[in-house]
Amino acid sequence: MTQTQPLQVYIDFLCPFAWRGVELALILRETRGLNVQLRHYSLVQGNHPENPDRKQPTWWLTDQTADSGSDMQRGSLAAFLAAHAAARQGEQERFTFTVELFRLRHQDGRALHDPTTLHAAAERAGLDAARFAQDLQDDAGLRAALTEDLRAAAALGVFGTPTFVLDGANAAYFRFARLPESPEAAHALWELYVQTLLNDARIETIKRPR
Amino acid sequence: MTQTQPLQVYIDFLCPFAWRGVELALILRETRGLNVQLRHYSLVQGNHPENPDRKQPTWWLTDQTADSGSDMQRGSLAAFLAAHAAARQGEQERFTFTVELFRLRHQDGRALHDPTTLHAAAERAGLDAARFAQDLQDDAGLRAALTEDLRAAAALGVFGTPTFVLDGANAAYFRFARLPESPEAAHALWELYVQTLLNDARIETIKRPR
Repeated sequence: MTQTQPLQVYIDFLCPFAWRGVELALILRETRGLNVQLRHYSLVQGNHPENPDRKQPTWWLTDQTADSGSDMQRGSLAAFLAAHAAARQGEQERFTFTVELFRLRHQDGRALHDPTTLHAAAERAGLDAARFAQDLQDDAGLRAALTEDLRAAAALGVFGTPTFVLDGANAAYFRFARLPESPEAAHALWELYVQTLLNDARIETIKRPR
Repeated sequence: MTQTQPLQVYIDFLCPFAWRGVELALILRETRGLNVQLRHYSLVQGNHPENPDRKQPTWWLTDQTADSGSDMQRGSLAAFLAAHAAARQGEQERFTFTVELFRLRHQDGRALHDPTTLHAAAERAGLDAARFAQDLQDDAGLRAALTEDLRAAAALGVFGTPTFVLDGANAAYFRFARLPESPEAAHALWELYVQTLLNDARIETIKRPR
């Protein structure tokens, strides 16, 4: 397909399926030159009992203090803000930081609510550590950037991660259990997703029973 | 793909997506000779507040009297039992009856809880009307056949219709909004579904936000 808009990928660092989605996006970016834009959707916010309608949240993750809530809530907020701090060093840096943080969490079992995990991701991604630490201090600015993501996700009706947005009209939650073992397998997987979204029958859901 | 088992399709006559699924199955049967086995899943039972776990229902549609519950509940039960009555005239007759009843409901807007709708489907499908009326009298036998379907659906974890079961290991809810406009379009749609279920990444869900 011809892409006029970047491929948007909504992620939450808590989610192992989002990790696999980001690994897929990494391959598409590196081998096909796809323009990938990472965006954040918060599972804690979306599933919060005070938000029965995901499109009209009243409880926002960005309104919570850094030390309130569960480990998941704190870890998720800290990871999102850290990704926005990484983004200040560039889009490539943001992408690499995101991949490394997902791997630390989902391959190595590191905790997101532990600040050393965030700094380890920055180091692995080759960020300027001093600048990263400094950018992390701009809490209000990072929260404003995160709020923009969460608003865009709510407007689109995102309900899970990863959600891949081909264009305004075609977006879906895309959950797969195994990482593709080769670039060719990744391309075939991606083509299936794209063809499913673009088919004339307007496929709305394919979902296995559990 | 080589099919050793029949393609099972779980349906509920209440559901417009199940109607589209059955139209797709009809094309696959007629143009590709696919062996299609129709089975019943009850949305009223699956979504009943007394059944928080769909795999372990305690409230069964087959335990309800013909005149109890909502129009949906009564219509759904009557349609299921009528389909099992039609099946006594043969597998082809059952299939044709099912297609005609779905069309009466979802194209013509006829009510399932109105017995004339069931008899109209039998007529359109070319059933023996006297035998159909007689077979409908065997309430206990028809309910026993329906219970078998509902048990199989619960064991598989079916949660919506249509659910297409390729084989024991590969099944999914498959919801699309538009009927394919040609056999070629139907084949392409079906190939997408099959490839999605058989992909090595084990795709679990593709679902558009609403």
